Amino acid sequence: MAPETQSNPAALPLPPMKWDAWGDPARAKPLPDDVKGLLAAALGVSGEGADELTLDQTALRSSELAEDDRRALSAIVGESWLSTADADRLPRSGGKSTLDLLRRKSREPQDAPDAVVLPGSEEEIAAVLALCTERRIAVVPFGGGTSVVGGVDPDRSGFTAVISLDLRRFDRLHELDEVSGEAVLGAGLTGPQAEELLATRGFELGHYPQSFRYATIGGFAATRSSGQDSAGHGRFDEMVRGLRAITPAGTVDLGRAPASAAGPDLRELFLGSEGAFGVITAVRLRVHPLPAAKAHEAWSFPDFATGAAALRAVEQQGTGPTVIRLSDESETFVNLAMTDKIGGSQVTGGCLAVTVFEGTAEQVAARHEATRTALLAAGGTSLGAEPAEAWEHGRFDAPYLRDSLLAAGALCETLETATNWANLGRLKSAVTESLQSSLRASGTESMVMCHISHVYPTGASLYFTVVAAQRGDAIAQWTGVKRAACDAIMANGGTITHHHAVGADHRPWLDQEIGEVGVRILRAVKDAVDPAGILNPGKLIP
Amino acid sequence: MAPETQSNPAALPLPPMKWDAWGDPARAKPLPDDVKGLLAAALGVSGEGADELTLDQTALRSSELAEDDRRALSAIVGESWLSTADADRLPRSGGKSTLDLLRRKSREPQDAPDAVVLPGSEEEIAAVLALCTERRIAVVPFGGGTSVVGGVDPDRSGFTAVISLDLRRFDRLHELDEVSGEAVLGAGLTGPQAEELLATRGFELGHYPQSFRYATIGGFAATRSSGQDSAGHGRFDEMVRGLRAITPAGTVDLGRAPASAAGPDLRELFLGSEGAFGVITAVRLRVHPLPAAKAHEAWSFPDFATGAAALRAVEQQGTGPTVIRLSDESETFVNLAMTDKIGGSQVTGGCLAVTVFEGTAEQVAARHEATRTALLAAGGTSLGAEPAEAWEHGRFDAPYLRDSLLAAGALCETLETATNWANLGRLKSAVTESLQSSLRASGTESMVMCHISHVYPTGASLYFTVVAAQRGDAIAQWTGVKRAACDAIMANGGTITHHHAVGADHRPWLDQEIGEVGVRILRAVKDAVDPAGILNPGKLIP
Repeated sequence: MAPETQSNPAALPLPPMKWDAWGDPARAKPLPDDVKGLLAAALGVSGEGADELTLDQTALRSSELAEDDRRALSAIVGESWLSTADADRLPRSGGKSTLDLLRRKSREPQDAPDAVVLPGSEEEIAAVLALCTERRIAVVPFGGGTSVVGGVDPDRSGFTAVISLDLRRFDRLHELDEVSGEAVLGAGLTGPQAEELLATRGFELGHYPQSFRYATIGGFAATRSSGQDSAGHGRFDEMVRGLRAITPAGTVDLGRAPASAAGPDLRELFLGSEGAFGVITAVRLRVHPLPAAKAHEAWSFPDFATGAAALRAVEQQGTGPTVIRLSDESETFVNLAMTDKIGGSQVTGGCLAVTVFEGTAEQVAARHEATRTALLAAGGTSLGAEPAEAWEHGRFDAPYLRDSLLAAGALCETLETATNWANLGRLKSAVTESLQSSLRASGTESMVMCHISHVYPTGASLYFTVVAAQRGDAIAQWTGVKRAACDAIMANGGTITHHHAVGADHRPWLDQEIGEVGVRILRAVKDAVDPAGILNPGKLIP
Repeated sequence: MAPETQSNPAALPLPPMKWDAWGDPARAKPLPDDVKGLLAAALGVSGEGADELTLDQTALRSSELAEDDRRALSAIVGESWLSTADADRLPRSGGKSTLDLLRRKSREPQDAPDAVVLPGSEEEIAAVLALCTERRIAVVPFGGGTSVVGGVDPDRSGFTAVISLDLRRFDRLHELDEVSGEAVLGAGLTGPQAEELLATRGFELGHYPQSFRYATIGGFAATRSSGQDSAGHGRFDEMVRGLRAITPAGTVDLGRAPASAAGPDLRELFLGSEGAFGVITAVRLRVHPLPAAKAHEAWSFPDFATGAAALRAVEQQGTGPTVIRLSDESETFVNLAMTDKIGGSQVTGGCLAVTVFEGTAEQVAARHEATRTALLAAGGTSLGAEPAEAWEHGRFDAPYLRDSLLAAGALCETLETATNWANLGRLKSAVTESLQSSLRASGTESMVMCHISHVYPTGASLYFTVVAAQRGDAIAQWTGVKRAACDAIMANGGTITHHHAVGADHRPWLDQEIGEVGVRILRAVKDAVDPAGILNPGKLIP
């Protein structure tokens, strides 16, 4: 970092996460020595990853925003809401994928947006977009910065500069309709901020993805996020009743009714639009009263296929758990090894499933009982409440473990897909095999773990966690492994992403997902709402 | 009808409905004399509507398809699957709105497609679309012809001719995945055909709109249909897992997984596309095992607001009825007067609600009990099973009554909308007032009845039935009344249509529904997939 940045400290409120790791440093989870030993023995993990760099050691690309553009943008949002300081640009330089984290440990030049702009109103956003259209400046809408698919990379190809448009000032609960159970939430609210505002009125949104603590309402909408309570409360896109977005072509305000036959549902174009069609400013969401009661129960199944059939029975019968998830044999085994003792001596193998129930006391009792009956009938053995409570306690903490693994010289990343129940076993095997064989080809054994965390009447998600040893250029190593896994997903009937979104990383597979005509449609919509193509270039649209 | 048509009889399988009335003539419901007397006394209904015309008395517009075009189309589908006969064209000349039925009683020239084409494969559809693009022939995809919004009008503006593309040969159950609970159904299957194919395998789709007996799978998808069992099985769009459509730009095959974060959900563009983006050929749908048990219970509420709050409680608590609906005071009163005795002497006023439960015996018992508890707590009085069974028995027959009312000189039509629970009362009053006052201005008193037939956690539909006297030009009379009602819907926070779709009739309001940028997006998608604009011109897109 150049010396002049000493006189250019952070001027703006910073994203809450550490710039080169997940989340809050206070929550870091260093690996115990015996785990390091195990990793060395089983996978040949060296114990030594790249050092963490201080800000001063980072070679950040200088801001290329022309002074005239800086002045013009400042005139829109006010001097105090624009910064070109390295300390403001670096934390908005990308997301939190393993590739991102490996890059941030590199002494090579790091890319970053040329400026950070924090608009305070829709009018300011519209003015920023108009200016950037005129001056050919790319705009990356920024929420919590939790993307794991390169969704906020500062891609400036073909533009004079790229700015990060941080939405954090859109942080209000605009409206709560307690009768209809609808809330209008500002796009910049993080998960905890949104839940706190609702809780003071006795309501809950109930969207708890792993990124919950940092990601934002706008980001959830733009990426079709799915939370761990999706069995009970639905995916984020299912909670959306309406949304407002500012496009270079004007404002959209979609969703007049709980349901409509007034043509194509255009909300579904902005959900998953990843900042490429417009800047989402507010989302109207279904909310529900805070649950009065809660129950937990964990289960063991002899194998993954039996457990998956049990989850299928529960979901197809509609017995109503809020959370239901199933770890495969490997994940169950590793969780046992890695977690501080989680009670229940019965957890000795097989596949662990977790269920949580919420609602009124009566609803919880009825849902719990109906789910128990179905899981027992499908071959499950109850492990009691404790392992499920332990899962809930640590539900947002897995990414911290990844940081420790990377620091220890391990490669660790997750990827996910979804398919029909009938195809679940085939897809799981194919992706597992692809990961193992491509890692082996790179010179390391691997552990591939998998769980089902989102169920639907017709199918389920598959979430893979991979741990292996870093070999050579770890970025190149993982890029190749991920490419093979994506190919395996597409060849075996999966979707390229169930809840991580497309970003830059999955973009090469989107044409297979939606076909040539689908790509043509996305491009046509893009041209209609963003003719200059300034919004989040290089993401989503092939 | 010109004499040469005598040598030009129907050559193709005909749509199952009578050309100038709803459904099957054998099911016609003539009005009893005392009802006619009541209508005369209360509304000034004359007792005499326009006479029914025979085919020979109808002045059908001659086919304008050039002989060369006819030959080229025949070469694609085969001579036996194309017809320019009046007897084939007339039954595809439009839908079944009151305006349609009034027009068909007119001796003025009637419009009709210039030819009817029944393709037998996706390749044939693609070839037809390519030919029509080249020769500027408009194409109206045709399913059951049940549109009540002008959705299949033969609009030829700017084109050399217009053909009706009847999908009835796409009538197969392509695939049933019993594990995942998914079926791929041909777009031309009618409701009963689809249910029969599924029932032989022990499954049910569960989509029962009033048009069930005649409408098709492709039509349900293209119009975002909603069935009477929507509380239990969801709207049709919610059942869709995937679809195939042939556009002039190529084939789309969307929906790889039960849920995905792979960008905007393009299925939601083809759902509700009303034939303007492509010809839907097959739909992948969620299906469920045929229910083993069923229960009915009817309820009385002292007034509509109390009843609506009760339905809201049931839906927000998720007690799980398959059907739940509520008639307002007027509809309850009129149903009592018009229906053959429906048992239960308790039904003496107030608002009638109907509930139906399906599933396993255990599910039915649990759902019934939870719903009873909620309805009792909300001020309902049980009327026992009989009125609910009577409703179910006649659930598809209301349109026959409309034909009899029109024949007796009454004006009768339905319209529908939806809104949030908090806005339901305001919207209902505003639309009722608009209908009554505009009919009064046309010279007649009116009866305006309303029911809720589709509920959501955040709101519900409102379905209005209007009966008045025909005054002067009944087509002009209703056109004015409907315009005022649509304006009232938009001014009071409703959607322009909850399940009837946009067609030609609601098109003038779509810009208010989706805004200027929304319209721009629809036009961009249209240009991308149908650059010549041949697909169903004059519908949907403003």
